[in-house]
Amino acid sequence: MEKNKIRVGITHGDTNGVGYELILKTFGDPAMCDLCVPIVYGSAKVATFHRRAIGSETNFTVVSSPGAAQRGRLNMISVFDDEIKVDLGVPTEESGHAALLSLQRAVADYENGDIDVLVTAPINKKNIRTTDFPFVGHTEYLENALGEGQEALMMLMNRVLRVALVTMHRPVKDVSGSITQNAIERKIEILNESLKTDFTISIPRIAVLGLNPHNGDDGLVGEEEQTVIKPAIDAMREKGVQCFGPYSADGFFGAGQYRHFDAVLAMYHDQGLAPFKALSMDDGVNFTAGLPVVRTSPDHGTAFDIAGKGVANENSFREAVYAAIDIYRNREREDEATANPLKIVAQERDSKTYSQRNAGNQIE
Amino acid sequence: MEKNKIRVGITHGDTNGVGYELILKTFGDPAMCDLCVPIVYGSAKVATFHRRAIGSETNFTVVSSPGAAQRGRLNMISVFDDEIKVDLGVPTEESGHAALLSLQRAVADYENGDIDVLVTAPINKKNIRTTDFPFVGHTEYLENALGEGQEALMMLMNRVLRVALVTMHRPVKDVSGSITQNAIERKIEILNESLKTDFTISIPRIAVLGLNPHNGDDGLVGEEEQTVIKPAIDAMREKGVQCFGPYSADGFFGAGQYRHFDAVLAMYHDQGLAPFKALSMDDGVNFTAGLPVVRTSPDHGTAFDIAGKGVANENSFREAVYAAIDIYRNREREDEATANPLKIVAQERDSKTYSQRNAGNQIE
Repeated sequence: MEKNKIRVGITHGDTNGVGYELILKTFGDPAMCDLCVPIVYGSAKVATFHRRAIGSETNFTVVSSPGAAQRGRLNMISVFDDEIKVDLGVPTEESGHAALLSLQRAVADYENGDIDVLVTAPINKKNIRTTDFPFVGHTEYLENALGEGQEALMMLMNRVLRVALVTMHRPVKDVSGSITQNAIERKIEILNESLKTDFTISIPRIAVLGLNPHNGDDGLVGEEEQTVIKPAIDAMREKGVQCFGPYSADGFFGAGQYRHFDAVLAMYHDQGLAPFKALSMDDGVNFTAGLPVVRTSPDHGTAFDIAGKGVANENSFREAVYAAIDIYRNREREDEATANPLKIVAQERDSKTYSQRNAGNQIE
Repeated sequence: MEKNKIRVGITHGDTNGVGYELILKTFGDPAMCDLCVPIVYGSAKVATFHRRAIGSETNFTVVSSPGAAQRGRLNMISVFDDEIKVDLGVPTEESGHAALLSLQRAVADYENGDIDVLVTAPINKKNIRTTDFPFVGHTEYLENALGEGQEALMMLMNRVLRVALVTMHRPVKDVSGSITQNAIERKIEILNESLKTDFTISIPRIAVLGLNPHNGDDGLVGEEEQTVIKPAIDAMREKGVQCFGPYSADGFFGAGQYRHFDAVLAMYHDQGLAPFKALSMDDGVNFTAGLPVVRTSPDHGTAFDIAGKGVANENSFREAVYAAIDIYRNREREDEATANPLKIVAQERDSKTYSQRNAGNQIE
């Protein structure tokens, strides 16, 4: 195991936010440097600035490439030589550019096979946006850069639930138009595959939310549940996917029904993320499912209001590192396990039957 | 105090749901019958059916009118003489009709001054819908029946937060079109007044959520924050209302920012209610603010899947009774207190200054 420690590429995000604080706090624990080979794409100068600002004692080692990364250390690769000004708490053109350079280098190194997984610190969507980054977020950028034609699925997870989204960063007025039967089926399929491969759940149980208040109230408050969502669920069930719903979002979260499922597919951003974050205890992780690359991030933003104050909570970032490592290992095991398939075994058959029986009880 | 016990009119809701179970369990506690004069608009036969089904020992007294209601008892007024069939767990035409008759009689008695407040058990929006009830919910019905030209504001509350909605039971595709500056200003105003009058908060602090993911990300993911919501907040602040925002819904609930405010104004149903219910511990109350009548209900539905099984949790219903009584008393006190106004006192001035100072710290 010692031989193949996972090389975790880490982007520093917006350099005026809490990115470095999260990194320094997380890898201030020697156990974290022992768990993997952390490689930050950043700037020693900027890191030192933040280190002083927050009074951190975490040391790092500057290396020129991932190949030179040292075991047991927090490694730092400089992605730019220029001096850049750190304006704590203010998104600037410089800090946006620095965020982009970090991401670009990490992506290039990933493509070269020099890092195994990617953990990204928060960016500001406005100041990173240039002709080189015409995207509204990491997920969309990475789908384009490293997707190899695969479609990304935004998934948030903590210790009690996983929530995935059919539509991501889309204005509310455009949500309904984006909710097509085809889109939902694709997202269910990606989610199902991810739960199997990334989380080793052999027969995942997926809850699908409705779009409208009270699940459309049988057509009184919207039609999409009947015209689009239910048909998508039915089609995927015919393909053998254990998906159920649609469920009314508020009642679903209120009754804690998510506890009966391996993941929840929400129709749009706030429907899934507002209750998810309400239920998170600083431990939420954003995982980009569906892509060949394993990428995670904390579930929060740049937190400009507390940048450089030393009060940022690194839990979510640490969980993102754990999750990236776990998912990478699960994929390795899945590859090994399925390399020489055996016939289905009795135990697997039983669990399938059990799961279906259970499922019947929970359809509303 | 003994003389003017508050007369709580209670509708039985859909007779095939958990309504009677909630009522019987709540008023099985003698303290609850001592706290107020509960008057159920229902049917002794149907109540008895449910009483047996769930094995309740709660007794009730059949009376012909609210004037005949007895102290210390659960009073029952029959709103129909016909036999109706109880099909536990199934919304039928009969159960929808029974729900409507109960509501109509309660409204009539309220108009006659025979009851003080209204607590409604859950209805099914589909089977109650007739030419007599062309509404999608209680809130819209009561705004029409008892609003006296006032506009209703749907508010959900529990022990940690209050959430009010700009749009209620509206398909997601129509939400953006309904979010006008005028509508938001009106809702902020109603909310502010309700917090003062119904909850005795002298200078309420109100958080307003954005409409789009990440609060529109400065226009990248929607424009309404800048074109509609911010101008509405600014206009209301100029009128002296302590309202702040807009805030990104997921981050707002994730960071627990609601703890710093007396209420949160969400733009649409699931944005407010999904996180609200996720955070509720079976104690959520739906309060119709803005109307002359005080009306509350539990924050859940008919729960057909567990009707008649004796496992329904009455907490939310009991809290609804408490809330209706509290709000009614607060309004009485407010009326008394403002009948002969004095000049502003030093203490009030101080609290105003304090509140404004505090507020400044919390604007994002």
